[in-house]
Amino acid sequence: MNRNVCVVQDFLTEEHKAKIRDAAAQTGFSVRFFTAEEQEAAKAFLPECEVLYAQLPDLLRAAPATLKWYACSAAGVDPYCADPSIFRNPDCLLTSANVYGVTIAEHVIMVTLMLLRRMTDYQEPLQKHQWPSALGMSLPPIRSIRDGAFTILGTGNIGRNVAARLHSMGAASVTGFSRGGWPVEDFDAVFPIAELDKHLPETTFLIMALPGTPDTFHLLDRRRIALLPKEAYVVNVGRGSAIEQNALADALNSGAIAGAALDVMTPEPLPVDDPLWDAKNLILTPHVSGNMTLGYTREENVRLFCENLSRYAEGQSLKGLVDRTRGY
Amino acid sequence: MNRNVCVVQDFLTEEHKAKIRDAAAQTGFSVRFFTAEEQEAAKAFLPECEVLYAQLPDLLRAAPATLKWYACSAAGVDPYCADPSIFRNPDCLLTSANVYGVTIAEHVIMVTLMLLRRMTDYQEPLQKHQWPSALGMSLPPIRSIRDGAFTILGTGNIGRNVAARLHSMGAASVTGFSRGGWPVEDFDAVFPIAELDKHLPETTFLIMALPGTPDTFHLLDRRRIALLPKEAYVVNVGRGSAIEQNALADALNSGAIAGAALDVMTPEPLPVDDPLWDAKNLILTPHVSGNMTLGYTREENVRLFCENLSRYAEGQSLKGLVDRTRGY
Repeated sequence: MNRNVCVVQDFLTEEHKAKIRDAAAQTGFSVRFFTAEEQEAAKAFLPECEVLYAQLPDLLRAAPATLKWYACSAAGVDPYCADPSIFRNPDCLLTSANVYGVTIAEHVIMVTLMLLRRMTDYQEPLQKHQWPSALGMSLPPIRSIRDGAFTILGTGNIGRNVAARLHSMGAASVTGFSRGGWPVEDFDAVFPIAELDKHLPETTFLIMALPGTPDTFHLLDRRRIALLPKEAYVVNVGRGSAIEQNALADALNSGAIAGAALDVMTPEPLPVDDPLWDAKNLILTPHVSGNMTLGYTREENVRLFCENLSRYAEGQSLKGLVDRTRGY
Repeated sequence: MNRNVCVVQDFLTEEHKAKIRDAAAQTGFSVRFFTAEEQEAAKAFLPECEVLYAQLPDLLRAAPATLKWYACSAAGVDPYCADPSIFRNPDCLLTSANVYGVTIAEHVIMVTLMLLRRMTDYQEPLQKHQWPSALGMSLPPIRSIRDGAFTILGTGNIGRNVAARLHSMGAASVTGFSRGGWPVEDFDAVFPIAELDKHLPETTFLIMALPGTPDTFHLLDRRRIALLPKEAYVVNVGRGSAIEQNALADALNSGAIAGAALDVMTPEPLPVDDPLWDAKNLILTPHVSGNMTLGYTREENVRLFCENLSRYAEGQSLKGLVDRTRGY
């Protein structure tokens, strides 16, 4: 009997499917492809499968205990770790796709420059078809990436790609923080998150790229926000749960920090009456920094899955294997 | 008798003034400082001066023929070249300040990413406090700097700084165009502008950083815009006169090109009823890419002037010396 792989993805081209079929054939697997709309058909196929490549918690919940590996095409796997009962097979392997570093880093560089260069200040006059100087508005002071003391929370694929780009643009310093605090390429230094407090007063730009876990919940709380200097900006591309959101809105509105850009928040979509909508100097984007519409990200996602399928078939360790109790 | 320098600048700090005074003292010059508001007092001092460091065409017009060097603190010197009668001394030296590369390159990277990542698409739903998906809007396809075939018109300080940053972010190709087409660091290749037409169909991102001269007037005209592929974006940080503006608006509105970002236009400020205001997929900024409020730019401006003052006193060639007939 053939071993089966169930793939439920909307982003695959015919070329992608051919690559996956080839990788499967070389390792003794058969594959069937479904779109998200065809979930019911996929569910019917799941009892025959040991591998599922998808990004749909409800689908995983429907998989029987015979599923051995859930290859998640997303980077963040918090929905699969918060509730262990989502896996009927408690030993089912879970991998995350750490292929979003390039696109998320480009998003971070974009909003970093939008904040430093005060793009938000121009929005209102330009919408009115008016030149800021015609309104008596003088140009706001701007800053360069060169001036920045950058602190990045999270030194994984995303943090490293951001750090490399900041350095190449001349950033004064790029310091990383991770659970272990081990040295990582592209960072001037990496410290344990336990030592974060003493670095916050010297941070002029804080970038958060942390997974959603119990440990990272409200990591940037009201107390830590108060440690940041007045000129600090905050960017979050990890999970909204890592920020005490009301405290951030207060700090923005009172001018206690200079601005922020959030691509993730709690909850998503943000309710229409959420105070964040009207917070000062805040750039909101609707969870698009890891946008799967970027061709490069899709290519890498498929490449990683095919590589991991070979590794799986040969009993090797999988890339992006998640420790489900740790949450990443 | 002491030789005199007249400085008319609003951006100088006491430290900047001290640096200029030191440089002057070391070369046998005396300096007097004025703000733009104190122009009349500056005009009264000009007959005693051989050097003027400013950015005010009207002030230069008032300078007698004894002025030997006008050190312009701007990068673009078109107002001083278009009308030679602005100099009473026909042999007066003119220098431009080529110190805007860093800040303009950061602006270019910002708008490049805003265009590639379709930030304009999110603006309307987010202003209504609505999540795009709640409006049934699907995520637009985005592109990465990695995918881009970048063509940069102008290979000076600005073009080079842009090229270096694009390369460090993995751009597929960065081709420069200049009058002479000489090789320049940070570019894969540099061609003469006369050969531009055959490169336009392969250009997916066109960045213009050209001086305002008779040669560059409407360089990107309707005919050349039509040579660009549908997926092309256009960014202009040089002079508005280099683009046939109505043709660009037409191309944007008809979808003949994917989008544009203009920091310069004709005229500035843009009239309230100009068709550009409502052109599709256009990011307008009010001539701020070389914003003098950036500390680094101001430091470099003062440093360059002090260096040139020493060179001037010693009879050496000046940095940024402009050929007034050529216009840059």
